[in-house]
Amino acid sequence: MQHAYNEAISAWIADEVPIGAVVVHDENIIASAHNKTRTQNDPTAHAEMIAITIAANHIGDWRLNECKLFVTKEPCPMCSGATIMSRIGEVHFSFEDPKMGGLGGAISLQSLELSNHKPKIVKGTMQEECRSLLQAFFQIQRLGSQKS
Amino acid sequence: MQHAYNEAISAWIADEVPIGAVVVHDENIIASAHNKTRTQNDPTAHAEMIAITIAANHIGDWRLNECKLFVTKEPCPMCSGATIMSRIGEVHFSFEDPKMGGLGGAISLQSLELSNHKPKIVKGTMQEECRSLLQAFFQIQRLGSQKS
Repeated sequence: MQHAYNEAISAWIADEVPIGAVVVHDENIIASAHNKTRTQNDPTAHAEMIAITIAANHIGDWRLNECKLFVTKEPCPMCSGATIMSRIGEVHFSFEDPKMGGLGGAISLQSLELSNHKPKIVKGTMQEECRSLLQAFFQIQRLGSQKS
Repeated sequence: MQHAYNEAISAWIADEVPIGAVVVHDENIIASAHNKTRTQNDPTAHAEMIAITIAANHIGDWRLNECKLFVTKEPCPMCSGATIMSRIGEVHFSFEDPKMGGLGGAISLQSLELSNHKPKIVKGTMQEECRSLLQAFFQIQRLGSQKS
């Protein structure tokens, strides 16, 4: 999760919402990404989506059953859906998002009765650091826009 | 929807699951795509995701409020989430997917209480043609794998 947090810091430096994600396979990081929605002008360019695409490319298979995703907040419904579509083995996220979390916070996509994949969910690692980083970013954005 | 259907045919020719999507803006098709998960070895490369990325690039804005997405089946939770993240104005899909549909079939992501965007949903156009195409594809795949 520390690597995902470092990616979130890189996102902030690039003026992106500070969320980072890494994919681990056999205890090696095979994909590392941060949010790029502004830089790429692409609403689908979330950290998790980019990391999953890189990981599938690295493995040479779109099925990531043996992989673990680490992300600095609970994934949104789009990214949560991607964890199911990619059949990723485990999803580790730091803190829950009661507004738009797709893995238990606002909705539980992993509990869809007919889904053919239910990733294991692990939550809570580095939750204070990751939550504080995101809160600080939005606070600074708000204050900045009030002043300008 | 006819253009989306033609994209689905192109998908089949490329040995991909036959699903197609187009994005319309000011009555012009600005993005057109079909499933490429096998070709690109990428579980996120669904027709809707690719079409949304192309459309945002075309418009020069990740917010697609003035756009309409047409797709040959109800989007999965990942793609349904992408319609919310992109703030797309309308989603037109042909037939419901009670197993994995994210816009009413299996789950209703557009009804998330705290979501800041709820696209208008229009369904039913060309539902028989689109459903038949997908059913035929999977039937042929099953029979082919039994014979080999």
